Amino acid sequence: MISRVMSAELAEHAGRRVTIAGWVHRRRRLKSVSFLVVRDRAGLVQAVTSAPLPAEESVVRVTGLVRASPQAPGGAELTEPEIEVLAEPVEAPPFDLYRPVVPAALPTILDHAPVALRHPLLRAPLEISAASVAGFRETLDRLGCTEIHTPKIVESATESGANVFALDYFGRPAYLAQSPQFFKQAMVGVFERVYEVGPVFRAEPHDTARHLAQYTSLDAELGFVRDHRDVMAVLREAVAGMLESVRHRAPAAVETLGLRLPEVPAEIPAVHFTEAQRMTGEDEPDLSPAQERWLSDWALREHGSEFLFVTGYPMSKRPFYTHPDPGRPGYSNGFDLLFRGLELVTGGQRLHHHRDYVAALAARGEPVEPYEGYLRAFAHGMPPHGGFAIGLERWTVRLTGAANIRQAALFPRDLHRLSP
Amino acid sequence: MISRVMSAELAEHAGRRVTIAGWVHRRRRLKSVSFLVVRDRAGLVQAVTSAPLPAEESVVRVTGLVRASPQAPGGAELTEPEIEVLAEPVEAPPFDLYRPVVPAALPTILDHAPVALRHPLLRAPLEISAASVAGFRETLDRLGCTEIHTPKIVESATESGANVFALDYFGRPAYLAQSPQFFKQAMVGVFERVYEVGPVFRAEPHDTARHLAQYTSLDAELGFVRDHRDVMAVLREAVAGMLESVRHRAPAAVETLGLRLPEVPAEIPAVHFTEAQRMTGEDEPDLSPAQERWLSDWALREHGSEFLFVTGYPMSKRPFYTHPDPGRPGYSNGFDLLFRGLELVTGGQRLHHHRDYVAALAARGEPVEPYEGYLRAFAHGMPPHGGFAIGLERWTVRLTGAANIRQAALFPRDLHRLSP
Repeated sequence: MISRVMSAELAEHAGRRVTIAGWVHRRRRLKSVSFLVVRDRAGLVQAVTSAPLPAEESVVRVTGLVRASPQAPGGAELTEPEIEVLAEPVEAPPFDLYRPVVPAALPTILDHAPVALRHPLLRAPLEISAASVAGFRETLDRLGCTEIHTPKIVESATESGANVFALDYFGRPAYLAQSPQFFKQAMVGVFERVYEVGPVFRAEPHDTARHLAQYTSLDAELGFVRDHRDVMAVLREAVAGMLESVRHRAPAAVETLGLRLPEVPAEIPAVHFTEAQRMTGEDEPDLSPAQERWLSDWALREHGSEFLFVTGYPMSKRPFYTHPDPGRPGYSNGFDLLFRGLELVTGGQRLHHHRDYVAALAARGEPVEPYEGYLRAFAHGMPPHGGFAIGLERWTVRLTGAANIRQAALFPRDLHRLSP
Repeated sequence: MISRVMSAELAEHAGRRVTIAGWVHRRRRLKSVSFLVVRDRAGLVQAVTSAPLPAEESVVRVTGLVRASPQAPGGAELTEPEIEVLAEPVEAPPFDLYRPVVPAALPTILDHAPVALRHPLLRAPLEISAASVAGFRETLDRLGCTEIHTPKIVESATESGANVFALDYFGRPAYLAQSPQFFKQAMVGVFERVYEVGPVFRAEPHDTARHLAQYTSLDAELGFVRDHRDVMAVLREAVAGMLESVRHRAPAAVETLGLRLPEVPAEIPAVHFTEAQRMTGEDEPDLSPAQERWLSDWALREHGSEFLFVTGYPMSKRPFYTHPDPGRPGYSNGFDLLFRGLELVTGGQRLHHHRDYVAALAARGEPVEPYEGYLRAFAHGMPPHGGFAIGLERWTVRLTGAANIRQAALFPRDLHRLSP
């Protein structure tokens, strides 16, 4: 690698001549002296010079004498610099990357993602996203889960029917997987506990701030649970692990965005769906966004928790593979986790007896044939199990307070956007 | 979770009454006594009983007194067991899962993957695969890389033209990404060092033991390299980290398969392409499988290494974004890593100047338009960089000695197979 010191370590080298490398973030010319601010992956370095300054976004290597300087970024600056340009930009960025507030609207940012994401405020959510995933895996590894990679091309569009992308598979019709649901359940029979981090696809015809055509799903599925409460306990660990990892791995991004990270209570409060309805004074078969916000406020007020489980959703509103609540006809062992006013995670206990799958499909008037490959796993003995799926971009948006889910994806795909 | 002791810890509980849970792996009836062998994710437990035995693959919870027993798996067995059946199979497995050798051909295994993969010999490669990925990430995290998740749906089928899957994207044509190449390069401009573990898609019309329509690619891309040798050094670290992780995280799978894991030399030997040709006495513009085998044998014989870099492939055989060798016209800074006779990884230094991309496309007679989104990243200042991609299934097959790459994928997709 090009031998260099990272920006964040510069102050440790005071009095020595060192080399840094990165992009020209900003040029500031004063009367007698100029400042060249260089950005590397760890932060910013300021060099003081009277020489001509390369254009912003030039890639440079700068060798100079480190001098402590309380007002410089990182508390030190480079003096007497020799500046070598490794690559010159041939185009100016669509907006100034050094502005403290991003001076561009979302379409401009997305159209120019490769350069726009260099802005520290736009890069930070993606660093938080990466740290979150690392914490998710770390937690589930610790709990004895095995990581799996499942097919993204599937034969039938079974899980939710609508909103699937169709493709030509060697002359046969096929579809992009909307979730690894069936595969992860089948793998409980092999590994007992599994997780997957991977893309899922929804041909989502709505153009909203909350929908993407491709997103990253953090999926887990756990065998030998007693019921959905064991799944909720593991989800609590996963969320706590994600936040812990953000604190440890992405402190600079947290600071850049000025975030206050939530605390995860040792036990996240939970209300039953019917109780949630009673409290909010509604009796629709599902919770509205307004109810979810009200419940989140209530949990914060009453329990000091930014997280709230809603359990026992009506069977009619959950997928056919959901396990019913044995003590409460019509209600399920399915749950949602609300976070700051929005549903963040859906999960639950699943059916595990083959006969229950056959009966559940019959009760919904659905044919068994399209599910035969799926059902086969349950013909061979499956333990009580359950799982959950966290939408990574949705998580990142909630955590960072971004207005649009597209700010939590590198190169978002939506109804209109297929590039860059 | 269902309260239980894992099989691997049973011996620590000698003299106590404990509960285990898992699948009935095998039933053995002798004259006066029967053995029930239960399989959980950690191994096998034997229970001694005179009670009736549940069918194989029944899910059971067994409570009994632990007695040390040198000839039992794990050195202990359960006596006086109470057996509770949590789920019964409704179909027998397609073959006996307890046989020491898998008594089935590959098509049977693949057709019945959800149950067939329960066989310890078929599960082990997937455990080794998961451990390898964990080691890959661990190494690159340590080296300051940021994990990214890039689009799998792309606008144009640019990278290699042929063998792409076409899909209907809200009424527009689109394609499944064959690699994250362009995205990961663009993200060097944002994070300097990135990696991605994700699916890639090849509409591979050949039905061979080496090709999959979807596989998992371990991609890395690194900025501020001096040249391809820095990329090779990071790849060496990644491979060593993968093997170290397999040793640590999957020792049971290594033992089940009786594997001898390779050592990675502190510096992997490297030969230039022209030297490889000279030694093998051929002068085709690419290396044949026979040459790759010969070179691997040579590296083992001469350097005691199961790994060998071949560097300096002719520019004509590498993608247009490959950086030429400045000192040797016609040759590139692209390399392959051979492992046990086969190419395992392709990598190299890439072009980083915008003008060089424009010139490279012109030299190949290719239009600039389809690459405009890609080239835009280079218009804004990109450092010297390079990277590599490891095919996870290919790695696992080489490591485990499996005959067919389909044994290293959970639910392989190929010319004929789209389910389960």
